[in-house]
Amino acid sequence: MIVIMKPNATAAEIGAVIRRAESLGVTTHPIYGDNRTVVALVGDLTRVSRESFNAMDGVNTTVRIQEPYKLASRTTRPENSVIDVGGAVRIGGPEVVVMAGPCSVESRDQIVETAIAVKEAGAKVLRGGAYKPRTSPYSFQGLGLKGLEYLAEARAVTGLPIITEVVTVETLPMVAEYADILQIGARNMQNYGLLHAVGKAQRPVMLKRGISGTIEELLMCAEYIVSNGNYNVMVCERGIRTYETSTRNTFDLSAVPVIKHTSHLPVVADPSHGTGYREYVPAMAKAAVAAGADALILEIHPDPDNALSDGRQSLSLTDFRKLMADLRRVAEAVDRVIDGEPSAEPVAQEETAQVA
Amino acid sequence: MIVIMKPNATAAEIGAVIRRAESLGVTTHPIYGDNRTVVALVGDLTRVSRESFNAMDGVNTTVRIQEPYKLASRTTRPENSVIDVGGAVRIGGPEVVVMAGPCSVESRDQIVETAIAVKEAGAKVLRGGAYKPRTSPYSFQGLGLKGLEYLAEARAVTGLPIITEVVTVETLPMVAEYADILQIGARNMQNYGLLHAVGKAQRPVMLKRGISGTIEELLMCAEYIVSNGNYNVMVCERGIRTYETSTRNTFDLSAVPVIKHTSHLPVVADPSHGTGYREYVPAMAKAAVAAGADALILEIHPDPDNALSDGRQSLSLTDFRKLMADLRRVAEAVDRVIDGEPSAEPVAQEETAQVA
Amino acid sequence: MIVIMKPNATAAEIGAVIRRAESLGVTTHPIYGDNRTVVALVGDLTRVSRESFNAMDGVNTTVRIQEPYKLASRTTRPENSVIDVGGAVRIGGPEVVVMAGPCSVESRDQIVETAIAVKEAGAKVLRGGAYKPRTSPYSFQGLGLKGLEYLAEARAVTGLPIITEVVTVETLPMVAEYADILQIGARNMQNYGLLHAVGKAQRPVMLKRGISGTIEELLMCAEYIVSNGNYNVMVCERGIRTYETSTRNTFDLSAVPVIKHTSHLPVVADPSHGTGYREYVPAMAKAAVAAGADALILEIHPDPDNALSDGRQSLSLTDFRKLMADLRRVAEAVDRVIDGEPSAEPVAQEETAQVA
Amino acid sequence: MIVIMKPNATAAEIGAVIRRAESLGVTTHPIYGDNRTVVALVGDLTRVSRESFNAMDGVNTTVRIQEPYKLASRTTRPENSVIDVGGAVRIGGPEVVVMAGPCSVESRDQIVETAIAVKEAGAKVLRGGAYKPRTSPYSFQGLGLKGLEYLAEARAVTGLPIITEVVTVETLPMVAEYADILQIGARNMQNYGLLHAVGKAQRPVMLKRGISGTIEELLMCAEYIVSNGNYNVMVCERGIRTYETSTRNTFDLSAVPVIKHTSHLPVVADPSHGTGYREYVPAMAKAAVAAGADALILEIHPDPDNALSDGRQSLSLTDFRKLMADLRRVAEAVDRVIDGEPSAEPVAQEETAQVA
Repeated sequence: MIVIMKPNATAAEIGAVIRRAESLGVTTHPIYGDNRTVVALVGDLTRVSRESFNAMDGVNTTVRIQEPYKLASRTTRPENSVIDVGGAVRIGGPEVVVMAGPCSVESRDQIVETAIAVKEAGAKVLRGGAYKPRTSPYSFQGLGLKGLEYLAEARAVTGLPIITEVVTVETLPMVAEYADILQIGARNMQNYGLLHAVGKAQRPVMLKRGISGTIEELLMCAEYIVSNGNYNVMVCERGIRTYETSTRNTFDLSAVPVIKHTSHLPVVADPSHGTGYREYVPAMAKAAVAAGADALILEIHPDPDNALSDGRQSLSLTDFRKLMADLRRVAEAVDRVIDGEPSAEPVAQEETAQVA
Repeated sequence: MIVIMKPNATAAEIGAVIRRAESLGVTTHPIYGDNRTVVALVGDLTRVSRESFNAMDGVNTTVRIQEPYKLASRTTRPENSVIDVGGAVRIGGPEVVVMAGPCSVESRDQIVETAIAVKEAGAKVLRGGAYKPRTSPYSFQGLGLKGLEYLAEARAVTGLPIITEVVTVETLPMVAEYADILQIGARNMQNYGLLHAVGKAQRPVMLKRGISGTIEELLMCAEYIVSNGNYNVMVCERGIRTYETSTRNTFDLSAVPVIKHTSHLPVVADPSHGTGYREYVPAMAKAAVAAGADALILEIHPDPDNALSDGRQSLSLTDFRKLMADLRRVAEAVDRVIDGEPSAEPVAQEETAQVA
Repeated sequence: MIVIMKPNATAAEIGAVIRRAESLGVTTHPIYGDNRTVVALVGDLTRVSRESFNAMDGVNTTVRIQEPYKLASRTTRPENSVIDVGGAVRIGGPEVVVMAGPCSVESRDQIVETAIAVKEAGAKVLRGGAYKPRTSPYSFQGLGLKGLEYLAEARAVTGLPIITEVVTVETLPMVAEYADILQIGARNMQNYGLLHAVGKAQRPVMLKRGISGTIEELLMCAEYIVSNGNYNVMVCERGIRTYETSTRNTFDLSAVPVIKHTSHLPVVADPSHGTGYREYVPAMAKAAVAAGADALILEIHPDPDNALSDGRQSLSLTDFRKLMADLRRVAEAVDRVIDGEPSAEPVAQEETAQVA
Repeated sequence: MIVIMKPNATAAEIGAVIRRAESLGVTTHPIYGDNRTVVALVGDLTRVSRESFNAMDGVNTTVRIQEPYKLASRTTRPENSVIDVGGAVRIGGPEVVVMAGPCSVESRDQIVETAIAVKEAGAKVLRGGAYKPRTSPYSFQGLGLKGLEYLAEARAVTGLPIITEVVTVETLPMVAEYADILQIGARNMQNYGLLHAVGKAQRPVMLKRGISGTIEELLMCAEYIVSNGNYNVMVCERGIRTYETSTRNTFDLSAVPVIKHTSHLPVVADPSHGTGYREYVPAMAKAAVAAGADALILEIHPDPDNALSDGRQSLSLTDFRKLMADLRRVAEAVDRVIDGEPSAEPVAQEETAQVA
């Protein structure tokens, strides 16, 4: 850490900074410039508070040299983390894993039909929301426990593991009973009570970047989970809030190489929320694979026009099947693979869907 | 609501929009332009989902005509809401109420000394955090229950009502037992579980704008609380995240006249978080009063250099006393008042502080 | 400047940084931490390029310790600059100077009538655009030379100095012939050809902050002008682009204390563009005075409903007169003054207006 | 256009809106809701000013239904525009064109060596700046005319067409004499004088998105050029300014599918400025091709460590060659092609480079 003094800082003020640093067990290197003095702090700074130095008289500001997270850092662990989901799917390895499903679970038929299509198209994880945080108190808030049960049925039919969102500490035990991956949504990225709780849970976690979270903050929030004992964390880029309005969010795809560079955690990309319009999803899903994402999470719906939420950004099952074929080609072009051959007999499976 | 069709929308797609709207009990007015058709929807739209129309084939987008909140809207209630805090302080009336105190409660002495200074300077509410949401899992997280007890002691000594933050649903009953005003912090603006819970609580609530919350979203979150039965809600502008880095946040002071125009709820301004640097706080506190804020919330500390959190933005007690005098003059210049004459005998009270 | 090496930087890479720095005549202080090495550079760094160090192998990034501007810095010149406009008005001193007028000069009558109202209300400078940069090629682009002539007539009638925008180097000589203050608009903040040219002009300049300019960049652009010889520069906060849409821009009023703290140049606030809605202008104009602005620039119009541009944010003459009275009170409350007593005989002057 | 009245708008105010619209030759459809009236305007609105309606008494705001640009819109011209550059390269067709070169032309040797490497790697256009807009008045501002001459030499040696930036109207004739493509930089996106001038020039133009320009504004600026007669315009996504600091800008890659959807103009992607760090450029270059960009513009340098500008984001020639091979694979995976086989005899050409 570098402590930058104000131009008119006194010797006493500089001395106070040095004494405080040394009392914390770190070595100090004051450098006296023409206009300014800076004090470099060297040693283990994980528990040294920047803001306590910021607050001192005569200090202008401080600059951090190292990332504030440790367990999530690639410096600590140079090789990629690979997360095992239910023994069948591995996220963070050579395969690009596609997770797909509706925004909300709406009915048994809807989720089972979708799950079959997901499996048929070669995707590996089923997504679906049972508890939905919504901007308006008057909007559909999800089916709750009933939704979890439908998800479990869809898993029973297809064998696909399930990812679903957990929104409160109280409902975590119940959600964890059903989910193979726990999703922390963007609004809850800094809900530290919830982060602590999933840090104690025995399930992989997908942590979504907050709508105005920096990449560093996202990794700090991952650190909250990992430092509570749960190392199976993947982080998800899903678009940030900017002034641009032609997309729902601004999909900050550069986050993929940045996070791969600074952390060992797997990175998921969500082009559905990233763009907000189904016509832009295929281009950005392909871009995400080309950029090096370890997984994609996509919103699809058997009848997007009548979806109860996020229909504008949901692909139809037909468009999804076509996209999966395109994604396989892009994955190969960047030396990755999308496994899970599409079924040879889609018709028969569609029959199953109708029966189910 | 206006539904804007794509340029190439078919008659069947337009018909589907009209039928869906009419099935929801609203009247439709299709308008056929040269390139585009739009369908205006008239009636009670509170429970009509924009996104369900957005998702339909042939629809480009939708535009809302009315605010999505109802109970918080000035259209519903033209006169200002005035919130009674513990029978002594009224927020939203002619008086500009100043709330002040440290970011975190650090010790019994620290909070009692500060409380006496707060009272002495003529401020009306004591702030102090017992539960602190922190970006790093390695930072000081607050004294918890002990902090609440110290706040209660400070109230007993000074008679000042207390505002303190609640961060989880589980700790709400305990916090509500001690607090006169419940603060919902910026990170929890959209923590809907918590909003529901404080909506059932018997305490006034101060809801802070999220770091990337729009004004409309802030009022929607207020609506969550009000629609659960708690009408004593004030909202707080505390700076938003932008590209500018010379302040900690960008203090969006225009939110004050905007909210006063669209809602009847009282508006609080927080120039401490809004700027992040104590040298800018006095200018922006005065500006906030001139802009029409109903209350200010300020971070002060008996020894900012040694504050455990947010010291960089905390005023010393001396600077705070000077600021209070300046604020009184500005309040008068805009036909408001800051009551609570400063004590005639500050010395004696400082003795009390030392005794306490 | 601090050069921060990558965790795995080699001794050779560190050596190269040191040699380059020393070849530029600056002293180096390498500090070897556990994970990282940093090299502090001390000396005259004005002409040392940060990016040339950023580009070196083994370098992660660099951090600047001093402001990149020199002539505009308060470190260089501790006392406030005061700009003399035409011998009658001084900007940057105890008086808060109000500049007012229409967005565009539309006709001789419009500008003369407005000028009389401006003078009558006690404002000191007349604003009006003759050359208008417009987002659409199909919008009204200003009256050009004819507009300048009308402004000159309005000055002849009232004695008020004129501020008007210059948009190209080619038209600068002509505009400078008419204008008392040259305005550089937000879109041209970084039009360096134009900055060079006004740096050579014999007129005070008001430089507006670009819609996404940082405060540091704004002061760097002022440095462009000052370093070309023109010291009579004031900078203007007029709102920045953020995600918030309830105002036209986000009026970053904290820029006022920040700039007063880091620079000696006078600061102007523009609440008309800052908010974009006339109903919010009075609150934010008062806030700007309370925050310490040296001048205000306001859009007013004798008939806002029929203004050719920016009518939504223009005050009527009546509302402007009322606002001036309110501003006087706020100025006094912060120990400033708004001179220029309002005329005792407004009716007679309105007759003059009609005659003119 | 939809004019949304305030809740309390009077019949007279609504009548005034209708009369103004009808006086402009457009048809009106007033719709009377419970709380609000809206007036829909139908007809040719290209020259109807939104802001003139915004300014009227009783109007809350207006909403545009159609894009404000016409010539640049895909509605006007459904098929892709393809731009012919010097008879040899076509941008906007099946080929993804790679433009590469240094940020600044620094010397004859530097640009000729780079040009040979560009050609050898299979890229089709040489980039290089002779006039450089720089944030600091004390930074290297480019070689000017000498730089243009070196570029011409590099073209003579390699046959590659040249793209270079034009920064002022005065230097346009000279730049146009040398350049095959005129680049308008991000800072000048809304420099309307310059847009007018290149609209009259006989050269293709690449218009870069401003650092805070919306996609709609970018296309409006393209409209400025096209409406002056120059249809050979391509637009370039190069990153926008947001709160995120781990990249130089936020590379808004979704702009590619958005622009391809709303406009017929070719889209160029600039991952060098988009990310600002050479380690992230390959991932985002591949992503840009996967997202559907028609061309890439890349900064490369024979010795990035010693580049006079933007070295941090410049690829070495070796890394560039490797990237070109990777890009070919991605292009094929999305049914595009990167022509220009890499030379079979790179060694011999490197000799040429040394001789040159």
